[in-house]
Amino acid sequence: MHVKLSPEDVKTVACIGAGVIGGGWVAHFLARGYDVHMWDPAPDAEAKVRHRVEAVWPVLTELGLAPGADPGRLVAARTLDSAVADADFIQESGPEALPTKIDLLAHIDSASSPDVVVASSTAGHPMTDMQVGATRPERFVVGHPFNPPYLLPLVEVVGGRSTSAAAVAWASAFYTAAGKSVITMDSEVPGFIANRLQEALWREALHMVAAGEATIEQIDRAVTDGPGLRWAFHGPFTTFHLAGGHGGIAHALEHFDPTEYSQWSRLASPELSKTLKQHLIDGAIATTDGRDVAELTSERDASIAAILRTLRRAEQPS
Amino acid sequence: MHVKLSPEDVKTVACIGAGVIGGGWVAHFLARGYDVHMWDPAPDAEAKVRHRVEAVWPVLTELGLAPGADPGRLVAARTLDSAVADADFIQESGPEALPTKIDLLAHIDSASSPDVVVASSTAGHPMTDMQVGATRPERFVVGHPFNPPYLLPLVEVVGGRSTSAAAVAWASAFYTAAGKSVITMDSEVPGFIANRLQEALWREALHMVAAGEATIEQIDRAVTDGPGLRWAFHGPFTTFHLAGGHGGIAHALEHFDPTEYSQWSRLASPELSKTLKQHLIDGAIATTDGRDVAELTSERDASIAAILRTLRRAEQPS
Repeated sequence: MHVKLSPEDVKTVACIGAGVIGGGWVAHFLARGYDVHMWDPAPDAEAKVRHRVEAVWPVLTELGLAPGADPGRLVAARTLDSAVADADFIQESGPEALPTKIDLLAHIDSASSPDVVVASSTAGHPMTDMQVGATRPERFVVGHPFNPPYLLPLVEVVGGRSTSAAAVAWASAFYTAAGKSVITMDSEVPGFIANRLQEALWREALHMVAAGEATIEQIDRAVTDGPGLRWAFHGPFTTFHLAGGHGGIAHALEHFDPTEYSQWSRLASPELSKTLKQHLIDGAIATTDGRDVAELTSERDASIAAILRTLRRAEQPS
Repeated sequence: MHVKLSPEDVKTVACIGAGVIGGGWVAHFLARGYDVHMWDPAPDAEAKVRHRVEAVWPVLTELGLAPGADPGRLVAARTLDSAVADADFIQESGPEALPTKIDLLAHIDSASSPDVVVASSTAGHPMTDMQVGATRPERFVVGHPFNPPYLLPLVEVVGGRSTSAAAVAWASAFYTAAGKSVITMDSEVPGFIANRLQEALWREALHMVAAGEATIEQIDRAVTDGPGLRWAFHGPFTTFHLAGGHGGIAHALEHFDPTEYSQWSRLASPELSKTLKQHLIDGAIATTDGRDVAELTSERDASIAAILRTLRRAEQPS
């Protein structure tokens, strides 16, 4: 396929589905100076999104808005068809059930201009499985964000079997123009990249809790007061590179085999029993002092923004 | 055992072994206002440590020194015996080989006052295996730090089979008084907590590289621009709690099974072949633009310090 519009010239973005992720995309695209058309079948969706945009706007302002960025540029369309009709780019963030995704993408396909690229926020479904109901499957890509999409820069872009390479390249260029840190993947790895890594850590954490080896509070603190403070700016390989001292990763690989401690992490998932579930619930509530999730979420946003500002400063020579 | 000295009244800390970790401990204890006696058999150890302390002192000053903290309070002892003779607490950070650990702890045991607690920085050996050569094994604990110990707050404390509960409690109280975030473990889990979690993520990353599914740069960026920005202040359980929206973790567990995506992470370690090793070396060097590790390390320190300052600010009501 060939997309006539240059990725840098996008003016209007349609956000289909406006829950936690879709609403977060709305805030991001507004902050980057786009007109945003949202659609969501929930009757209170518009009110919730406007409330959310209002709540995060000060943080986004502090981080720096694009010229012309304005919450007033959000239009809540009454139908999916009208939301996508004039859109230059479409971000789908509907429910994760595969049949719903297939129907939603087929509907978007029939209602939108044929040379517009459509991205799905799915956290796990391969586009190959989702694009089967579309007449023009070549323009459908996965554009998987991290929550919250208006603060975490990462977007993983990958096409399905019927997606054209041009659509993948266009989507990657568009997200980059829209201020994202884009990882363009060549093949459909289940879970993409970041979720696979997250899942590996999460599963090990679940095992430790299930075996009574560590509490939820200990595990969370082990991450935030230990390796987590590095992971905000150094990934696992850069971390290992530095662990080698002046000799870097070559020295590190010679002197300690990074697979030597494999027995430290386990291999299968524990049964998610009723007891374990309740334990997780109690533990998470205790770890956060039973505080309201909205309040924790505001704090999370303030912290991420502060870290982002901080790291920007740290990158400048002083 | 009963330690006469209160953990808050420690004045002199001995650091035995002064490589990357031991030298980092020296900087930490100096910044917290202790007299530090170091010993390391390497002829250039003292010069290296003094150079390191000098290099990180501005960052430590900015984060806030304890009253009386002074790099001049470092004494490089000529023998292990003289280093530990007057110490109120001993931190061992020698090589990771088990026979070396056993000998070193036995030597420390014979040369130090019998009611002083001794902690090993080991990243993996259980104290049960290391304390076998000591006459008073009850005072030996693991006090596992994260690199760099003068910035990352986490210390995992756990005893061996012959360690007294009082020594574990005393060590935890001492590290807390010395400004650390302490996790006191009830049992000797191989790899403790944070390394198990790190290892799970690391192994998955190795697999993706070995399978050609993602590059080293992509994996590192997937972490730093995605979940890593949260892990600096929210652990995996708090993250999942927030993913549930207003309903928190209870809602999240009802609506998406966190083990559902287990197939996203793999089960065994890939062979660390010569080719894979070289690939890792090339990738890490490329990811860090071939820059000097010392320079990257300084930047790492500045970034962690900035994040720590930032998060302190974020915690205050504004």
